[in-house]
Amino acid sequence: MLTSRYAEVRAYTEQLAAPLSPEDQTVQSMPDVSPTKWHRAHVSWFFETFVLADHEARFAPFQDQYWFLFNSYYEAVGPRYARPLRGVISRPGAHDVGRYRANIDDRMQDLIGGLDDGTLTKLAPTIELGFHHEQQHQELLLMDIKHVLSLNPLEPAYAPRRDSGGSAGVLAWKEYEGGLVEIGHESMADGTFCFDNELPRHQQWLQPYRLADRLVTNGEWLAFMADGGYRRPELWLSDGWARINEEHWRAPFYWIERDGVWFEHTLTGTWPVDPELPVCHISHYEADAYASWAGKRLPTEAEWEHAARLEESDGPANLADQQTWHPRSAGVSSGALRQLFGDCWEWTSSAYLPYPGFRHADGAIGEYNGKFMSNQMVLRGGCALTPPGHARASYRNFFPAGARWPLTGLRLADDAVTGRGPR
Amino acid sequence: MLTSRYAEVRAYTEQLAAPLSPEDQTVQSMPDVSPTKWHRAHVSWFFETFVLADHEARFAPFQDQYWFLFNSYYEAVGPRYARPLRGVISRPGAHDVGRYRANIDDRMQDLIGGLDDGTLTKLAPTIELGFHHEQQHQELLLMDIKHVLSLNPLEPAYAPRRDSGGSAGVLAWKEYEGGLVEIGHESMADGTFCFDNELPRHQQWLQPYRLADRLVTNGEWLAFMADGGYRRPELWLSDGWARINEEHWRAPFYWIERDGVWFEHTLTGTWPVDPELPVCHISHYEADAYASWAGKRLPTEAEWEHAARLEESDGPANLADQQTWHPRSAGVSSGALRQLFGDCWEWTSSAYLPYPGFRHADGAIGEYNGKFMSNQMVLRGGCALTPPGHARASYRNFFPAGARWPLTGLRLADDAVTGRGPR
Amino acid sequence: MLTSRYAEVRAYTEQLAAPLSPEDQTVQSMPDVSPTKWHRAHVSWFFETFVLADHEARFAPFQDQYWFLFNSYYEAVGPRYARPLRGVISRPGAHDVGRYRANIDDRMQDLIGGLDDGTLTKLAPTIELGFHHEQQHQELLLMDIKHVLSLNPLEPAYAPRRDSGGSAGVLAWKEYEGGLVEIGHESMADGTFCFDNELPRHQQWLQPYRLADRLVTNGEWLAFMADGGYRRPELWLSDGWARINEEHWRAPFYWIERDGVWFEHTLTGTWPVDPELPVCHISHYEADAYASWAGKRLPTEAEWEHAARLEESDGPANLADQQTWHPRSAGVSSGALRQLFGDCWEWTSSAYLPYPGFRHADGAIGEYNGKFMSNQMVLRGGCALTPPGHARASYRNFFPAGARWPLTGLRLADDAVTGRGPR
Amino acid sequence: MLTSRYAEVRAYTEQLAAPLSPEDQTVQSMPDVSPTKWHRAHVSWFFETFVLADHEARFAPFQDQYWFLFNSYYEAVGPRYARPLRGVISRPGAHDVGRYRANIDDRMQDLIGGLDDGTLTKLAPTIELGFHHEQQHQELLLMDIKHVLSLNPLEPAYAPRRDSGGSAGVLAWKEYEGGLVEIGHESMADGTFCFDNELPRHQQWLQPYRLADRLVTNGEWLAFMADGGYRRPELWLSDGWARINEEHWRAPFYWIERDGVWFEHTLTGTWPVDPELPVCHISHYEADAYASWAGKRLPTEAEWEHAARLEESDGPANLADQQTWHPRSAGVSSGALRQLFGDCWEWTSSAYLPYPGFRHADGAIGEYNGKFMSNQMVLRGGCALTPPGHARASYRNFFPAGARWPLTGLRLADDAVTGRGPR
Repeated sequence: MLTSRYAEVRAYTEQLAAPLSPEDQTVQSMPDVSPTKWHRAHVSWFFETFVLADHEARFAPFQDQYWFLFNSYYEAVGPRYARPLRGVISRPGAHDVGRYRANIDDRMQDLIGGLDDGTLTKLAPTIELGFHHEQQHQELLLMDIKHVLSLNPLEPAYAPRRDSGGSAGVLAWKEYEGGLVEIGHESMADGTFCFDNELPRHQQWLQPYRLADRLVTNGEWLAFMADGGYRRPELWLSDGWARINEEHWRAPFYWIERDGVWFEHTLTGTWPVDPELPVCHISHYEADAYASWAGKRLPTEAEWEHAARLEESDGPANLADQQTWHPRSAGVSSGALRQLFGDCWEWTSSAYLPYPGFRHADGAIGEYNGKFMSNQMVLRGGCALTPPGHARASYRNFFPAGARWPLTGLRLADDAVTGRGPR
Repeated sequence: MLTSRYAEVRAYTEQLAAPLSPEDQTVQSMPDVSPTKWHRAHVSWFFETFVLADHEARFAPFQDQYWFLFNSYYEAVGPRYARPLRGVISRPGAHDVGRYRANIDDRMQDLIGGLDDGTLTKLAPTIELGFHHEQQHQELLLMDIKHVLSLNPLEPAYAPRRDSGGSAGVLAWKEYEGGLVEIGHESMADGTFCFDNELPRHQQWLQPYRLADRLVTNGEWLAFMADGGYRRPELWLSDGWARINEEHWRAPFYWIERDGVWFEHTLTGTWPVDPELPVCHISHYEADAYASWAGKRLPTEAEWEHAARLEESDGPANLADQQTWHPRSAGVSSGALRQLFGDCWEWTSSAYLPYPGFRHADGAIGEYNGKFMSNQMVLRGGCALTPPGHARASYRNFFPAGARWPLTGLRLADDAVTGRGPR
Repeated sequence: MLTSRYAEVRAYTEQLAAPLSPEDQTVQSMPDVSPTKWHRAHVSWFFETFVLADHEARFAPFQDQYWFLFNSYYEAVGPRYARPLRGVISRPGAHDVGRYRANIDDRMQDLIGGLDDGTLTKLAPTIELGFHHEQQHQELLLMDIKHVLSLNPLEPAYAPRRDSGGSAGVLAWKEYEGGLVEIGHESMADGTFCFDNELPRHQQWLQPYRLADRLVTNGEWLAFMADGGYRRPELWLSDGWARINEEHWRAPFYWIERDGVWFEHTLTGTWPVDPELPVCHISHYEADAYASWAGKRLPTEAEWEHAARLEESDGPANLADQQTWHPRSAGVSSGALRQLFGDCWEWTSSAYLPYPGFRHADGAIGEYNGKFMSNQMVLRGGCALTPPGHARASYRNFFPAGARWPLTGLRLADDAVTGRGPR
Repeated sequence: MLTSRYAEVRAYTEQLAAPLSPEDQTVQSMPDVSPTKWHRAHVSWFFETFVLADHEARFAPFQDQYWFLFNSYYEAVGPRYARPLRGVISRPGAHDVGRYRANIDDRMQDLIGGLDDGTLTKLAPTIELGFHHEQQHQELLLMDIKHVLSLNPLEPAYAPRRDSGGSAGVLAWKEYEGGLVEIGHESMADGTFCFDNELPRHQQWLQPYRLADRLVTNGEWLAFMADGGYRRPELWLSDGWARINEEHWRAPFYWIERDGVWFEHTLTGTWPVDPELPVCHISHYEADAYASWAGKRLPTEAEWEHAARLEESDGPANLADQQTWHPRSAGVSSGALRQLFGDCWEWTSSAYLPYPGFRHADGAIGEYNGKFMSNQMVLRGGCALTPPGHARASYRNFFPAGARWPLTGLRLADDAVTGRGPR
């Protein structure tokens, strides 16, 4: 079963990369972005480094220099190629990376197939981590290639456009009474996976609060813009105000104005901004300013998680398997929170910090999450580029407050209206 | 009484500036630092802008351009002179600023003296805010001139050296059982002052924890350095590791190595590092790395505040009135937490974020705190440069994680040892 | 004849690009470098813009956006894609560029074949300029891909290594009496091509001087380094001293030290530095410092050109047709100046400025040379990557004083020893 | 006589600094600018280092650290304080620098008075160099404080305004036949001073040329601006075009537009731009673009010097002794070249390079000029801030092509009209 899961995860990466030419796969359009072929190689390096190196009988690296080229940030593994220079490495090419992947796959399948049960049980968590690691890079691969293609005046599309779902429906509020609640992943003992940063499960005190039942739409964002949203300092965090002025932000990241009409670059081409779709590719600063303008605020991550656990699932989430490659409109309300998982990662008002009692793993794997716990904000939910199986209520995504190239959006929150809390 | 308090606060600023020449008062040694004469003028501008402008009968600005020159960051008040250029403004000179201050003082005293009780009651909070604002700048004035003088090869001192207090004593741990606690300033109704960011008082759930009863010392820091503290990536947050390598940090900010001996620049001159004194002028990154090395962590701001309220005062705090201008050693333990208020601002592990239910004031005054709530960490306590009356358990100071020129130090924290919690 | 010349020049570009993968052709390793496929497209754009657009019967651009993407710096032609971003354009890919080239070739051959003699005579100079423009980019393509490959830890080679020619031989000096001499290309009337910056031919007064009969070698450069050449400020221009310290230059650009041995990255792989070969990939600053160290100076461009006209050709020059892709050793002297054309472009002490009476052409073509006449130094001769037919005595190449990625070297000059001048 | 000359030069520095407060004297408004008190100290350091240190009987530095603080760029003298940080050194203050100056003066006068004739003869050239060095800094002191005061919204003036001379008169052209001419200072043997960069006198071949008989005026510059001068790329050097767009240059450096009217910051306050005055504070790039627009060119330095030697003096030059602190209008033509010495330094088209046969002096003094011979353009003449006795036909001033804070202007040149050359 681990072998079929392995095959499935690995194949999905190649499926996502398939529409991209060798040249597409080579480009690094800014330091935050990695080339497609680097993603494809790095996730293989992960298995080679953290599984094969320690458990293969006669281990030898596929290629000595790959050790150095495809390390992302693991200091404990040794020196690594400078991140902003990933795009200057033309070789190994896209085809060579395919050979590297095939080699790792053969050896991984051999290894897994040949392990006794005891060793397999010990090794399975690392292999499982490798699956989730690869899924993160599947999402990043799509976010990154979106940026690469966005800079091209030829306006290439990654995939054809799908129906985007019609009306966003009316925004309603759902109220929660809070109190002493439990936050964090239930347990690793139940066999479900989580990252170390979702642990330990712990208690938090929440005041009564309420959440909007869907994401903010482009139409609502246009109203914010029309009301001087990007020109009124009183709405902005100081860092945000500085940033939007230095970098001349006047609209979401991928919006382009042509003859007075706003268009949006997407993975399915460049289209007029649809007012019913969720606004996306906004920074935390913009999300926070919008909330101020609306007289509301962003949810904390604890509020979000608490509510997400209380809600029934509302139909299939708009994740990568839907192949929309873009947020869909919220549609008619079913009574539950809409768009919770999928569509856009939702900015929270919580800084990305360790949970009480957090301990990171030993060794290089311990660098996975903990060391990034400064100067970042938590996002919750998932997005249209998230692989299915990679979204859950306790998942903590994080980006710096100024990041705009990830597929981000926002859901409004507010303190509860006194005496109205239904739960 | 408001008039005598006014006179006292204002006079203290001039007393602090008195040892500084016109040239000293002109220099801005980096963008974070402001010239002494700018501080002296800006705090006067605050009273002119937020009190006199609205309440003086025939108000006219002392000098039109001062409105522009001495605004710090209030967007609502209009455009302002670029912060990094404060040091290129030679005029008004130090003496002219004195004349400006005297003028504002006369007018403020006239105004306060002439108000009826009703108006006074309404205006008093803003004037009180002006006092605390000026006290913040008194502290900054000292931190800033310390940086200015540190760059001078002549090694000038601001003041003569005082006795620094002997031994740091043994570090002991104090345990707290936590639970549902209240955090934040009690109330504005009791007549005591607080900033808006200390409100509202609210509940938080704390797990059992313990705190070191004194600050980390230079001697302990030297052991961290000797153990490769600045060269071991596994101890550092990722941003911190990048920063120490980019800027070649190998010791606290004001430390200088000469022929193998560490010296420290202080406001009282350059002296060999005293192992009994608290380590100071460290960034949050360094504090966090030290805590990792020690197998401990930093306290959250809620843990710190909760403990600070439970403790009895331990003799006079080492604030600016002690005229040590530098942290003092912890001395023998009295059983309470030592060095809580004074000596060094203590880094916490808490990001600077709004308390649940936080609302900032209307108008320009509302820019005082809220808009800085991103990318900063909270510090608690006070330091040797803090004016007396400006330290309290609920006070939230904040700086970016990389800031080193403020007078910062650290106190270790840890989860409680099971079954040992006394409270 | 113009058609066969056209075919020959165009084919040579494709021949040079043939060993490079689509990924290789995509990378821009620094702002000065352009991707191979960009070079291939840009030289086609030149013919499309400056020939086809004005003379083709029913002209339409091959692709609208190419107009924008493949303009290098012609302001008069309209806006252009930012130079440092050439490497983020994955599409058109290498194959698409091939289709673009084939289309332009067909149309150019049709156009040339269909012109009457009068029109052809009028158009021929622009087409001829297109040939020389493409040859310049052939040379740049090689210099650029050398840089791209140099950053790859896999150390890929562009081509196999050839014999590099043995001994450099003894350095001898040749003396010239100077006086009132003529400099600049003879005339465009004689049918030979030159760029506008080689005109007009004009008089200059030269004092008696002498030139080294070969280039400075790696062995001589190692002696300079061993004598503290990179650590002695008195040898350096002020800008050069600042630059080598900011960027930590301690050897020529492509040199790498491994366990105390110097290696050199070349287009044929990474090899130990051969002391008999000319030193190459040095900046003007380094060339000037070396000359100071040697008690000599660099030649002026007029001295170089005057001498180059007096000398007999000394066997076949080491240009691109030799397929060495690297400078060769000087070999035994034949009595003439060795290595004049080919091997390395030679830095002169002359700033790149207009000749007296210089007039640039009208229109966009006028931007070809004149606007670059500031902050650059002249180089003369040619190099191992220069296409044959692209080197001549009056040719003025130019780069900023700090440029190191071009294939540059140096020849020493000196004032004549009194009474010894043979001419 | 050397003692009275010494006293005179030194007193003039103090006279120029007298109107400036201690705060004025402390500010460094950009890296190119030095604080007034730094200039005052550095010129004293020059005498201390290059005269007293080697010739005073029991030499000891006035203050050890001054050796380090007041070295400008002499690598051979040892390490020095970083140039961009000159403005963070509040101490020594302006008064302390006065004490330093007085001490050096006493010791210099003692030394000069006590030398025997032989030693004096040997030492005199270095002392003389010290005078001219101090005069250069007198000019820089004024250019620098102009920049400092320009950033102050209070618009302080250095001195009161004088009459600026009325009409610029008609621009006429004077023609020169050129040929084999001699350039450079006549000789050091005749007892007149020159810098090493003015030597050796040597021959150059000049083609017939002509020069405008006065500087370009503000009125003419306004016509250039009105004709799109700053928006037409075809007029600009490539580096210039990049620079004006990056830094948004749309007018000369100190021009400010207020409600559609152009004002100019000067040392005598801010005044409406006077169309009769010479345009000033323009970069080489702007001068070159103006000349292109006018269908003319800039003179070479040889053309300028040759003409300057042929011309009779045209009344008193507008140098610093005139106390205008600003260029004056050209006034009615006397037939000679107007405004040759004084008013504005005139950009030439010549790069700053060594004359044929140039040799710099031994030791630290050798760093005076030669090492700056890259990436700079030559200016000739003098300006309204140049001390009298510091302007001569062979004087070579130099600045980078983008420099705008020096007092620069331009005079047009052209090739001679055939058959009209009078000489």
